[in-house]
Amino acid sequence: MVQKGSDAACRLGDIVDRFGGELLGPRDLVIRQVAPLDSARADEISFLTASKYRKLLSITQAGAVILGPDDRESTDRPRIVSTNPYVYLARVSGLLNPPRLPRPGVHASAVVADGARVAASASVGPCAVVEADAVIGEGAVIGPGSVVGARSQIGDATVLNANVVVYHDCRVGSRCILHSGVVIGGDGFGMAEDDGRWLKVPQIGGVVVGDDVEIGANTTVDRGALGDTVIEDGVKLDNQIQVGHNVVIGAHTAVAACAGFAGSTRIGRRCKIGGAAMIHGHIELCDGAVVAAGTMVRKSIAEPGLYDGFFPALPHKDWMKNLANFNRLHELADTVRDLATRLEALEKDNKT
Amino acid sequence: MVQKGSDAACRLGDIVDRFGGELLGPRDLVIRQVAPLDSARADEISFLTASKYRKLLSITQAGAVILGPDDRESTDRPRIVSTNPYVYLARVSGLLNPPRLPRPGVHASAVVADGARVAASASVGPCAVVEADAVIGEGAVIGPGSVVGARSQIGDATVLNANVVVYHDCRVGSRCILHSGVVIGGDGFGMAEDDGRWLKVPQIGGVVVGDDVEIGANTTVDRGALGDTVIEDGVKLDNQIQVGHNVVIGAHTAVAACAGFAGSTRIGRRCKIGGAAMIHGHIELCDGAVVAAGTMVRKSIAEPGLYDGFFPALPHKDWMKNLANFNRLHELADTVRDLATRLEALEKDNKT
Amino acid sequence: MVQKGSDAACRLGDIVDRFGGELLGPRDLVIRQVAPLDSARADEISFLTASKYRKLLSITQAGAVILGPDDRESTDRPRIVSTNPYVYLARVSGLLNPPRLPRPGVHASAVVADGARVAASASVGPCAVVEADAVIGEGAVIGPGSVVGARSQIGDATVLNANVVVYHDCRVGSRCILHSGVVIGGDGFGMAEDDGRWLKVPQIGGVVVGDDVEIGANTTVDRGALGDTVIEDGVKLDNQIQVGHNVVIGAHTAVAACAGFAGSTRIGRRCKIGGAAMIHGHIELCDGAVVAAGTMVRKSIAEPGLYDGFFPALPHKDWMKNLANFNRLHELADTVRDLATRLEALEKDNKT
Repeated sequence: MVQKGSDAACRLGDIVDRFGGELLGPRDLVIRQVAPLDSARADEISFLTASKYRKLLSITQAGAVILGPDDRESTDRPRIVSTNPYVYLARVSGLLNPPRLPRPGVHASAVVADGARVAASASVGPCAVVEADAVIGEGAVIGPGSVVGARSQIGDATVLNANVVVYHDCRVGSRCILHSGVVIGGDGFGMAEDDGRWLKVPQIGGVVVGDDVEIGANTTVDRGALGDTVIEDGVKLDNQIQVGHNVVIGAHTAVAACAGFAGSTRIGRRCKIGGAAMIHGHIELCDGAVVAAGTMVRKSIAEPGLYDGFFPALPHKDWMKNLANFNRLHELADTVRDLATRLEALEKDNKT
Repeated sequence: MVQKGSDAACRLGDIVDRFGGELLGPRDLVIRQVAPLDSARADEISFLTASKYRKLLSITQAGAVILGPDDRESTDRPRIVSTNPYVYLARVSGLLNPPRLPRPGVHASAVVADGARVAASASVGPCAVVEADAVIGEGAVIGPGSVVGARSQIGDATVLNANVVVYHDCRVGSRCILHSGVVIGGDGFGMAEDDGRWLKVPQIGGVVVGDDVEIGANTTVDRGALGDTVIEDGVKLDNQIQVGHNVVIGAHTAVAACAGFAGSTRIGRRCKIGGAAMIHGHIELCDGAVVAAGTMVRKSIAEPGLYDGFFPALPHKDWMKNLANFNRLHELADTVRDLATRLEALEKDNKT
Repeated sequence: MVQKGSDAACRLGDIVDRFGGELLGPRDLVIRQVAPLDSARADEISFLTASKYRKLLSITQAGAVILGPDDRESTDRPRIVSTNPYVYLARVSGLLNPPRLPRPGVHASAVVADGARVAASASVGPCAVVEADAVIGEGAVIGPGSVVGARSQIGDATVLNANVVVYHDCRVGSRCILHSGVVIGGDGFGMAEDDGRWLKVPQIGGVVVGDDVEIGANTTVDRGALGDTVIEDGVKLDNQIQVGHNVVIGAHTAVAACAGFAGSTRIGRRCKIGGAAMIHGHIELCDGAVVAAGTMVRKSIAEPGLYDGFFPALPHKDWMKNLANFNRLHELADTVRDLATRLEALEKDNKT
């Protein structure tokens, strides 16, 4: 691994004092990092989140293991028993790997326009640009080469990594993370067809991103045509996602990479949208809707649960056979109808 | 909404003087902004473009409404009757929301190489880079952090938003808008397979973008291998579209987000390509071809009209049943063939 | 074409001395550029790689042609006979079109942090940023606006075009080309579900990119959660590809644009992945697997060969008919089962 250093370290006892759980093992064992069962060392803590990895418990060299109540006795290594080992791991890892933030202050090469307000505890990195009347909150980080447009607001403790763009008149909440290449507030695709040509409809809405939102690399969120595009609190967007104008994504919804949302669609709260799923425009997905990867959603979804719609790959020969059958389905249906008619005739004959 | 300010304002009389249409109402009513029927205020103009919104006419507080001839008498509010209300709205909105362009001049932090020519009326923003012998036209805007490569040309009044990249030896026409993260002129995917390894084929063509083209955030247009990749006049590309090397996209074609065009494909004029549609390489789509969202096009299209090819999502259980049936289609076809043979035999028996 | 200048020039004799092949024609003919058969001029060399272009041989004005042994006598123009004309072309084009690299040195507007090591022969362009303890190798190019994070390493002769981001603690090998908008090392999509909210799992691995890798515009490669994401030697990634955390892509695999790889998936060596193909997480593709464009791979692939899974577009009416039949497949299957039962009954009757 390139780098896995953690300057932080803590003792097992400190961990359970902070995060709860039952400790079976020495309180003073020093833990420096989290690691998978098969590579963890004596000063690292590992975790068991799926029973298929249970066999690794017998060979792990981990100093300690986080596991669920059912696995309490599956090892005699030092261990922490928690009802949700993966969440527990996330907390321990967060403790051992605090974000390494740059020092507060505006880099000499950054350009902050007149009228912009940058909190004293915020950091504006090299070659970053903050335009007129933008507001950068306490502890916020504007990464190298990032651009915050006029009158836009970046909330407290929000991090824009390198080369992020937030257009003018947008608002990003607190404790958000925007990864490199994210573009917030580009124009939505709004055009009127005028005698075979396209006339631009000015996109005069903005984008409102709530608190605790994470947005992955190269994801784009367009500004509203009229009214705003809204990403509610706690939403997690992976990389290369496209969010069209006036879309609303409800709180705590998670979206995997390469998905797309066409304009004016409303996604409920706590939905899960799979990778490369495409959601058509002007529809509504209810709270708790789950869309499988690679699935096109054309109509509104009113009931929570899993929705599916893709064909997994087959060996070429098999696929081509299926495809040919599919394209001849109407012939098959016709044949079956014909057989049914003839069979009925025979049955009548036989009765008489 | 984050921001909806418009410094411009105009009177209804000015609007019809400029754009035509029939005014029913006071010429001197001041209009400051466009807004949807359900939120418009007394100094805003709204519009009715689809009959399903007609019921909102009775509740709207809009100062005036743009509507079609069929709706001329659907309200007694001040109104403008136009044969294409959406186009009319676009014009009024353009009047009320003129682009807010930066002041001309090269920002002190921008880097303009020797030999580059930047028109006096053009603006080169903070931390933007214009390389040797590039040409920036009158009134053009090179946004913060954008890079224009050597010998490339940016036409008059064309706007590159923040963090756009135009590689060397490309040409972008006049009045274009390129959104953040757009990359014009990266190398096409050209490689020769040489004994299990890939040998790069230099991509020595360029990219030619016509006039009045808009390109959405994070869309990429590769340079040609030999000869150019061409985006003709009036083309509108949404976000996150990929255009491979030597593709030609005909004038006034519109492409929704996340679509892709593989190399050397020719798209006709006035085509409409849906979101996430994928067009294979080395084929041709005729003028006026319309490809539905999420559709793969593998062969040339010679007739205009709509082409389709995706399965909309179903509840998981239903989809899995369909999928299983699909994978057993050949068995079903075999069964039907067998039934036909046996039925024929019975029919013969019965005749004898 | 925008620009096709090549300052280099060479003689046919020099070419065969350097790259082999049989020359039929004058050794001293000067060649300045490569070009397609139908547009090549007297000082350009063309090539014949597919028999369907053979008819162009009779009309080409090319000074010389590269062709295969079977076409040795298909023209009497000056020609070079090679067993792999496309590879030969790539070599000649590389000779005539050497990369135009910027001069070594750190541009005055670039920001190189204390502790970063930039080789004297490397170039760091305008407004580029190299963070603390990063290492830039001999002859490497960091393009305008690109950012190399803390402790990351960029190998010898590797080129980052404009506005590339490599996060902290990543490693890119030698002779790589990263196109604009590439993001290496953004956080993987790692979250633990904690009572309806998402808790971030720190992504503490890195990204390791081997030697001779090319990565297309706006492609993203996430850093590992624990352990690294790995792109092995000679891999070629086209534009707008998403590579999730802890994915391993084997040496000399080529991936076309818009494809995606979900987390922890392992792709073998010398695979070919088509455009917009989507590979699910936690699976394995063996060496030599070939996945067609637009195909979803949900399960591991253990045998090399072509895997398929998409429906090509049809005229809308045909597609809707097929789609309707597909959605009624279970009814059809039920009907066939019913017919079979009734037919069997009739057959029994007839025997008795």
